[in-house]
Amino acid sequence: EAAEKLKAEHGAARGIGVDVQLVAEVAADNDAFVARNFTDAEIAYCRASASPAASFAGRWAAKEAVIKAVSSRAEGEVVWTKGAGAPLNEIEIVREDGQAPRVVLHGEAKAAADAAGVADLRVTISHSGSYAVAMAVAQ
Amino acid sequence: EAAEKLKAEHGAARGIGVDVQLVAEVAADNDAFVARNFTDAEIAYCRASASPAASFAGRWAAKEAVIKAVSSRAEGEVVWTKGAGAPLNEIEIVREDGQAPRVVLHGEAKAAADAAGVADLRVTISHSGSYAVAMAVAQ
Amino acid sequence: EAAEKLKAEHGAARGIGVDVQLVAEVAADNDAFVARNFTDAEIAYCRASASPAASFAGRWAAKEAVIKAVSSRAEGEVVWTKGAGAPLNEIEIVREDGQAPRVVLHGEAKAAADAAGVADLRVTISHSGSYAVAMAVAQ
Repeated sequence: EAAEKLKAEHGAARGIGVDVQLVAEVAADNDAFVARNFTDAEIAYCRASASPAASFAGRWAAKEAVIKAVSSRAEGEVVWTKGAGAPLNEIEIVREDGQAPRVVLHGEAKAAADAAGVADLRVTISHSGSYAVAMAVAQ
Repeated sequence: EAAEKLKAEHGAARGIGVDVQLVAEVAADNDAFVARNFTDAEIAYCRASASPAASFAGRWAAKEAVIKAVSSRAEGEVVWTKGAGAPLNEIEIVREDGQAPRVVLHGEAKAAADAAGVADLRVTISHSGSYAVAMAVAQ
Repeated sequence: EAAEKLKAEHGAARGIGVDVQLVAEVAADNDAFVARNFTDAEIAYCRASASPAASFAGRWAAKEAVIKAVSSRAEGEVVWTKGAGAPLNEIEIVREDGQAPRVVLHGEAKAAADAAGVADLRVTISHSGSYAVAMAVAQ
């Protein structure tokens, strides 16, 4: 019911999130860190890419942008109950050939987006030089 | 009336703005510059943060993104009458714990957003390494 | 008809695109590269700007962001049939004094946006230090 109420109240509102990430700061070589924050499919995708470190950093930025976009849409309601150090593997970035990346939420991340009344969640990612940047919109 | 007309014409249109800022280029140590461009609450927040220079740069980028988003929504109408060197303390970024940053406009900045028919203004900020990035959407 | 169908299906959906670009990686001094990817008006604008290399990089990032936003809106339909190495001069960034940049599409780029049902396409650009960042929204 709280979710229904939020959906009604924030019907047209859009939450936005941006994140920039220094590639070197994402510990792509740390297996425990990677397993905690990325799904098996994401790990396979990043390791097979031309620049694994940049791919991991781009996905990391995308996950952070998603958290911000969902929180922005919630407009002051605290829907994301996990702290800043929570594992990010519940926010999955799915990539199919020639298509824009998609976001698939699991577990508590899905619950948070539902609580914020999110019906459509989009993400876009880029990297160049030493940085990755991602942006998300939650509607 | 001009504002009403713009609101009717651009009802569904969304203005967008992005800004990237090299942290070292924002003169966070220059008291006159800081006082001219940031409110007392912003200054207190940035000085108390883990990285004051990055916080000031993030807010600076957010203010620039807001100007761009409002101008983008106005679609060719010139609503922002102040020049590029105008003080930015009329665009205030408010941050409450665990919530997304909010934009509060004052004085001529508020008048510009009203003239562009802006009813909802959102901003998101990030920094990493040597850069801050912000994005704004004006609807 | 396919376009009409997409427009009906994705009526409220918004595609988003972000791009970051290391300025030094855009070959602003390579005449063949520039002619292939920028219109005469863009070339004149960039060469007259305070920082031609940064201006070319900003426009390059904007064009990439536009491709991503249109693809994001198409939601899995492949509307952009040209490959990654296709010339980008069919995506033109128009800049008038004191106004937000505008996107004008030509040829196959226009056909792709039509196929994705895009009615409104906006772009915003920024550069600082060694990087340019752009963001696009396609509705």
